Amino acid sequence: MDLHLYELCGRDPDLRFSPWVWRTRIALAHKGLPYTPVPWRFTDKEAIAATGQGKVPVLKHGDKWIFDSWDIALYLENTFPDRPSLFGGPVGFAAAQLIRGWADRLVPTIAPLAVLPVWTLLNDKDQAYFRETREARFGKPLEDVCGDTQVRIDAVTAALAPMRDMLAHQSFIGGDTPLYTDHMVFGGLQWLHSVSRVTLFQDGDPTADWFERMLDAYDGAARKAKTCADAA
Amino acid sequence: MDLHLYELCGRDPDLRFSPWVWRTRIALAHKGLPYTPVPWRFTDKEAIAATGQGKVPVLKHGDKWIFDSWDIALYLENTFPDRPSLFGGPVGFAAAQLIRGWADRLVPTIAPLAVLPVWTLLNDKDQAYFRETREARFGKPLEDVCGDTQVRIDAVTAALAPMRDMLAHQSFIGGDTPLYTDHMVFGGLQWLHSVSRVTLFQDGDPTADWFERMLDAYDGAARKAKTCADAA
Repeated sequence: MDLHLYELCGRDPDLRFSPWVWRTRIALAHKGLPYTPVPWRFTDKEAIAATGQGKVPVLKHGDKWIFDSWDIALYLENTFPDRPSLFGGPVGFAAAQLIRGWADRLVPTIAPLAVLPVWTLLNDKDQAYFRETREARFGKPLEDVCGDTQVRIDAVTAALAPMRDMLAHQSFIGGDTPLYTDHMVFGGLQWLHSVSRVTLFQDGDPTADWFERMLDAYDGAARKAKTCADAA
Repeated sequence: MDLHLYELCGRDPDLRFSPWVWRTRIALAHKGLPYTPVPWRFTDKEAIAATGQGKVPVLKHGDKWIFDSWDIALYLENTFPDRPSLFGGPVGFAAAQLIRGWADRLVPTIAPLAVLPVWTLLNDKDQAYFRETREARFGKPLEDVCGDTQVRIDAVTAALAPMRDMLAHQSFIGGDTPLYTDHMVFGGLQWLHSVSRVTLFQDGDPTADWFERMLDAYDGAARKAKTCADAA
């Protein structure tokens, strides 16, 4: 198959936490495609220079380089059409274009909870890079980005309201089984789950049950992954 | 066919403005189902007493009563399977369950802009009912609900961000043609368009172009409908 996926990591090369890389990891599991993970750090720009940009996920397929999680999903869907579909057909793909816009905006909602925990996991070189770029983005020291944790948790809880409505009727956004729409939402939540022990869900929140189902899906692809809880 | 749809109106029986009734009107147009509209006012509770609740849309099909716009959509889809599908199949239906949760929350975001204009369109009896119930809901006089119009417009604009992302790639949430996911979003925007002349969209907002396409869809079913602009 000759698939290589560049996956963001910190000091510990086995702890993978990028919300965007998680989308791709789960999409590859959904397609049942074996691949070689390549640990990648924020400052390893030369390793992915062929893509003309500096972010992961980056998928290398033979001599082809594909970047951006959405474009990788399209590439996988078109290149491996005989594998389980990520979108479930044209209507599912069209709907995913709207859900993508919604799911993408969960990431900045979760970000204030994640940035300082991420920083603690990085090596020295990446810590300096991350602090500089993120403090410029947020306009404040990393230590001040989160503020009141409960206020941030409440914002994520509010943003996930459509998930709770949906989960009153079915197990996944894809219906009985997950699709890439689920993968997109999962990526953001798995990011926080990987780097922080903050409790995001209230007791009885159906989103928590969906998240557990996603951890178990695809033979436990995400459940088996290392998190900060394992690293402690 | 013997379909009757109870549609909210004000003093003018031809001006229909409910965001939920609009979902059903467009769904019926999508299915190409002729029906008899029944003008209904907020206080006409007896006319729909058979449903055991006091809101429209209510669809009467022969001697069957169906209420709630979502349940009506399911009823139409299941009862008229040979007509164009509202959901485009099981995956589209499953995705619509999430998009529904998102689209439903556009309605309260639009509401502050709509409530006072709605009140001005009602007859005396409905004005008293509407003022009492809505002032209890919002906890303030109808005249104070909107506050800064631009702040309210900005909130709707922000909520529609996933639409703009999606419209960079395709014409409708359904893809090349609209589906019930489009109808749900359209209902909320057509509500405001029917009762107010407020300009919701900035120049160049692709959501404005989508809205125009929705007005023209189904042989102009929504374009032909009376709005406050016609009534003035």
